[in-house]
Amino acid sequence: MATNRQRKTRADGERTRRAILHEAVRLATLDGLEGLSIGNLADALGMSKSGLYAHFGSKEELQLAVIDEAGGIFRAEVIDPAIAAPPGLGQLVAVCDAFFDHLKRRTLPGGCFFAGAILEMGTRPGRVRERVSAFQADFLRLLRSFAAAALDREELPADEDPELLAFELNGIILAANARFVLSDGADGLGVARTATRRRLGLASDARAAATWDSV
Amino acid sequence: MATNRQRKTRADGERTRRAILHEAVRLATLDGLEGLSIGNLADALGMSKSGLYAHFGSKEELQLAVIDEAGGIFRAEVIDPAIAAPPGLGQLVAVCDAFFDHLKRRTLPGGCFFAGAILEMGTRPGRVRERVSAFQADFLRLLRSFAAAALDREELPADEDPELLAFELNGIILAANARFVLSDGADGLGVARTATRRRLGLASDARAAATWDSV
Repeated sequence: MATNRQRKTRADGERTRRAILHEAVRLATLDGLEGLSIGNLADALGMSKSGLYAHFGSKEELQLAVIDEAGGIFRAEVIDPAIAAPPGLGQLVAVCDAFFDHLKRRTLPGGCFFAGAILEMGTRPGRVRERVSAFQADFLRLLRSFAAAALDREELPADEDPELLAFELNGIILAANARFVLSDGADGLGVARTATRRRLGLASDARAAATWDSV
Repeated sequence: MATNRQRKTRADGERTRRAILHEAVRLATLDGLEGLSIGNLADALGMSKSGLYAHFGSKEELQLAVIDEAGGIFRAEVIDPAIAAPPGLGQLVAVCDAFFDHLKRRTLPGGCFFAGAILEMGTRPGRVRERVSAFQADFLRLLRSFAAAALDREELPADEDPELLAFELNGIILAANARFVLSDGADGLGVARTATRRRLGLASDARAAATWDSV
């Protein structure tokens, strides 16, 4: 049986590991997953390299742990609020709005971790690429399931295609992220919110709804 | 007056410089603009580092020259075919289709140079970021001008907003690029072509038009 002291040490170790990973996700949105080295991370955290090696045996292990941590942040900030919204059309609006809020909140300084990781790692075969790719596939599957629910509830036109809709909403999300990164967040995300609503048939007059930079 | 020999030497120098830059653009779509070093490029080309330094005095000068070369490729493969198309709606379809052809042709192994460069350099203030940002701003301005022409020609609904439309088409382009990079090009770009036509009111039944992966 573990003593109180052993349990406390394990809990401290887990807290330290999570703090390291959170900083690593932040750094990865600025320098990329390949730009992330145990040396750079040790500098950013004021820790020794050997201390970091005790947590992550290799650069690949660090990258995989960073992807999982980034996935946890994305789930908490984007997916969970959407799942809590009214099924169907409500969840489609909520998942996009939660993504725009995730950008606006600046949880990560370089915008969406996964948008960058897809382009950086997509052409590098290996476990890191597979982990990133699986996360993106799960996200697109979630968008399609929300769209299918909206169709079942007759909240979308009967000839709507869940795969096409998921593809286009993902595009609005990627365009919002690119705009956010280039504008250093100064630009409003209102155009992205307007585009989302127009695509979902929730704004009949796009021009009237486009009070963009106030959002 | 330059002798024939001097003119020939200058022409050879220019050809060498362009060959170097074309390889550098290709490498940058795999390793990023920051991953591009005079050392790596010398290895890829089988040239000496000192030979490359004679062409580009610093990493920043190399990066700026690479962005200009990538801009030339993008203009030749995406913008010029669009400008040659019938004004208005014809140009909007043509610019998106030319982009999908640019991916499919695999001119660059890592997909769209600018999609990657925006996310990589967007948070790094400096001349490289400004050059990338200016190119993206020009491209969005071109999309808006095509949309405005289509509105003038009454090819789009009167309440259409050129800025919103440009934002959404850019999103379809970015989603197509992400899909292309992750699927290693195996996946068809048909969903992107269908999304473009649906957005422009050219396909009334999205499902019927979605013969995606045959395209």
